[in-house]
Amino acid sequence: MDLKSFKENVIPSFEKEMLDYIGKELTKKEKLHEAMSYSITAGGKRIRPLLLLATIQSLGGDIQKGYAASAALEFIHTYSLIHDDLPAMDDDDLRRGKPTSHIVYGEDIAILSGDALLTQAFEIIADSDESSEKKVKLISALAKSAGPKGMILGQMADIQGEKKSLNLEELQFIHRNKTGELLKFPIYAACVIADATPEIEEQLMGYAEHIGLAYQIRDDILDIIGDVAEIGKNIGMDAAHNKSTYPGLLTTEGAKKALAKELTAAKTNLKMVEQISQNSVNPIQINLLTEMIDLLVIG
Amino acid sequence: MDLKSFKENVIPSFEKEMLDYIGKELTKKEKLHEAMSYSITAGGKRIRPLLLLATIQSLGGDIQKGYAASAALEFIHTYSLIHDDLPAMDDDDLRRGKPTSHIVYGEDIAILSGDALLTQAFEIIADSDESSEKKVKLISALAKSAGPKGMILGQMADIQGEKKSLNLEELQFIHRNKTGELLKFPIYAACVIADATPEIEEQLMGYAEHIGLAYQIRDDILDIIGDVAEIGKNIGMDAAHNKSTYPGLLTTEGAKKALAKELTAAKTNLKMVEQISQNSVNPIQINLLTEMIDLLVIG
Repeated sequence: MDLKSFKENVIPSFEKEMLDYIGKELTKKEKLHEAMSYSITAGGKRIRPLLLLATIQSLGGDIQKGYAASAALEFIHTYSLIHDDLPAMDDDDLRRGKPTSHIVYGEDIAILSGDALLTQAFEIIADSDESSEKKVKLISALAKSAGPKGMILGQMADIQGEKKSLNLEELQFIHRNKTGELLKFPIYAACVIADATPEIEEQLMGYAEHIGLAYQIRDDILDIIGDVAEIGKNIGMDAAHNKSTYPGLLTTEGAKKALAKELTAAKTNLKMVEQISQNSVNPIQINLLTEMIDLLVIG
Repeated sequence: MDLKSFKENVIPSFEKEMLDYIGKELTKKEKLHEAMSYSITAGGKRIRPLLLLATIQSLGGDIQKGYAASAALEFIHTYSLIHDDLPAMDDDDLRRGKPTSHIVYGEDIAILSGDALLTQAFEIIADSDESSEKKVKLISALAKSAGPKGMILGQMADIQGEKKSLNLEELQFIHRNKTGELLKFPIYAACVIADATPEIEEQLMGYAEHIGLAYQIRDDILDIIGDVAEIGKNIGMDAAHNKSTYPGLLTTEGAKKALAKELTAAKTNLKMVEQISQNSVNPIQINLLTEMIDLLVIG
């Protein structure tokens, strides 16, 4: 199965289950429910759930077992966008082509709906159909990825970095934490859920690291050369906020080369996965994960 | 041991461990660490950890086993205060006699440090020294108490209730969720950690429900008759915000009677606990929990 068919087969049923979690929480239609649903359904590309489920599929596991962790992850990703867009943070009024939460519901409800999504993420995993041991592993890893030594550490560094120009190392520190950690979690979660061997997990985590950086470099490039209709948010925002970016540090051409380098490194990890598993009873199929890399290629 | 001695013996070592969690997260002294520590150490009375640890003690359990859940709970209570005090929410500049987080660190860091405390709460339990089964129970219950069908549901109802005058039922709905759920969690957590029987748990949860309501009625009364030095926050804020309160609905005298009624009901639950356990090998000592009730008496 190719990535397109896999996505078309899996993501709609995953999205239905994800929305059910909000429905299960609040039986009567009310503003909190509405604000949570609004942001969850605001046209996200589901790149993180897709990574998680495609990795389980590649490892020969049961993808349904990955729905809860994928929903939790998407809840946390969505909360981080709601809070990031607030006037006191990035002050963005457009996200994925739609008005941001605080524009629609006001700042107070935007803050609370973000808090609600973050909190419920952990409930979803805790109440999922999995062994207690695996659930504890997933919760611990998700909290680390999203918390004060992961995503929030990166967000802090990002805020503090706005006031000065950063070097490449500082920029990478921000990205590894702010966006990289939540792109590594789906691969880790899939390894836990589908019982990957430590050798396979090591290579897949390398893959995750490289595509995480690639994703951010690509985002910076698209902020310069992309268009609003295609990427669903305002462009030129980095320049408007005087943000340090890969193109700013490396030129646009240099950033494109850095992107290509990360994508090549990610492919090398996948070849290793293939090699390690080729003599096992169920060799790992890397085609879906290879296609995930190809999605990140620019031009 | 009386409550005063118990508190003096236990709370300082608990607080040390709680601060260690922030230290463990972020090795270098930085603003995020500082903002998290600032709010955690800003003079909270530790009523929720005290409830949790005193209940474990009453049940004859190992109180050290309750430190992780108590820290997680205090992290979540603290995050909720940081976000509640934001300009877009209650817009309060004084809490426990000190400037609120956004006054000291700015709104962006206040939002992030709240998010960080909330996220790390779940990591603390996931990484604690307990069976996976119990950890999953605690995480699920904490997320439910703090999330969109617990505390946040109450906060939403509170925000929406500001625009109109509420009846007693609506006011109790807010309190049961906004503050009551996080006062019930410590009792539930203690029952899980110290293996309470279902019969004992049922009575203790009744106790928790009543002291939760009592706590809020008392808070409303003190907002009228208290003084800043004693309660550590500005008084008259409810009236200034046109908030519906127990004294507003019942008169101050009526609110005092309602408070007394809840405290009596809580004592009845404790007498039941004593009766149920009196013939067991280790009868439950209810004196600490009785003293917790006495703390809530006014005048």
